[in-house]
Amino acid sequence: MTQAMEAGMKSQPRVHLIWAHPRIGSLTSKVVEAIKNEATTQGIDIAELDLYRSGFNPVLQSEDEPDWANPAKIYSKEARCLAESLDGSVSLVLVFPLWWSSLPAMLKGYIDRVWNYGLVYGNGKSLPVSSIRWIALVGGAKKNFEDHKKDHYLEDYLNNGIASYCGVQDSTVTFLYNTIAFEEETSDLGKHHEALITQAKGVIIDLATEIQKEIAV
Amino acid sequence: MTQAMEAGMKSQPRVHLIWAHPRIGSLTSKVVEAIKNEATTQGIDIAELDLYRSGFNPVLQSEDEPDWANPAKIYSKEARCLAESLDGSVSLVLVFPLWWSSLPAMLKGYIDRVWNYGLVYGNGKSLPVSSIRWIALVGGAKKNFEDHKKDHYLEDYLNNGIASYCGVQDSTVTFLYNTIAFEEETSDLGKHHEALITQAKGVIIDLATEIQKEIAV
Repeated sequence: MTQAMEAGMKSQPRVHLIWAHPRIGSLTSKVVEAIKNEATTQGIDIAELDLYRSGFNPVLQSEDEPDWANPAKIYSKEARCLAESLDGSVSLVLVFPLWWSSLPAMLKGYIDRVWNYGLVYGNGKSLPVSSIRWIALVGGAKKNFEDHKKDHYLEDYLNNGIASYCGVQDSTVTFLYNTIAFEEETSDLGKHHEALITQAKGVIIDLATEIQKEIAV
Repeated sequence: MTQAMEAGMKSQPRVHLIWAHPRIGSLTSKVVEAIKNEATTQGIDIAELDLYRSGFNPVLQSEDEPDWANPAKIYSKEARCLAESLDGSVSLVLVFPLWWSSLPAMLKGYIDRVWNYGLVYGNGKSLPVSSIRWIALVGGAKKNFEDHKKDHYLEDYLNNGIASYCGVQDSTVTFLYNTIAFEEETSDLGKHHEALITQAKGVIIDLATEIQKEIAV
């Protein structure tokens, strides 16, 4: 089989799935599994970065400090490889729990180190994808979260503060609420979790439709 | 010398200083040095946690996942030791650069792991200090930061979202702006940095005054 034929067989659009949770078996990991299965159904390839199991170190050291005077700075090999690995994907999907209403250190450190000046933004660079879907698992109830405008803040932060800054205008945040059901009771936590997984699958179904439209143009 | 005599000699109020920056020689580290010197001048002991040099790992693993059904959960030894080390301090001072307009992963992970449910909040617990002073170094200019309401968000997040949640009502954020001077030129960056260091010292001078008042009550 020629390389071209192989490439032809692998011509499905690819989505890069980045996620952070310490525990396999967690609801976050179940959401990730469901997303991968749904992607397969939708004819989408997944490139997965499981930050916890990959051995990624979120601690930014000097070699990954941006040098504002030098956008051509050579960052650490790990940061460069992870930035390069995004090439060829049409979309990014990030799945994570909110801890202290924000990104876990693991994911924050990935962005600190890899989404770096001159590497994926600045100096004419941008993330090589057309869209980003952030899927955030929220322990607390929707009402409390919205009453404190935490949804607005995170949308502004992730969509405008980060995605747009990296050149991606099509960015949305989906909140999967009340995962722990301590602020709001649920009659059946298992069923509630299933509904959240279905909600996450919906993000992938919609994304697949958008990707197909984009390819057709 | 008896233990009581020793204790008497060590009766200066103690402030816990927690900071995060990869590089000794950074402006953040200079701010920290100035704060330590000013504390000595003010008759305050400093307990220092230099997160980067201490070997702290900000990656939360399962053993530090809060168990909402069990506030008596035994967390990792590292989390427990760091939480216990705060006992005896009257105030916390945290010094850090803002990366992507938020906490570096190193500091976020410290809060994720150590300021934990049943360990420093919840179940009748609270941080054992009367006040928290957050000192954030901001690369960009004050006007841009405020125009995007990032100051308001961070104040709400750190003071209400975290400090107050851990039982500390007296919490303030001080921003040291334009550290990189790329959004706003300065005629002399060295002098500008000196002014920022003086601003940070001012936080400690004011804190010392408040601590002395509290002791006198």
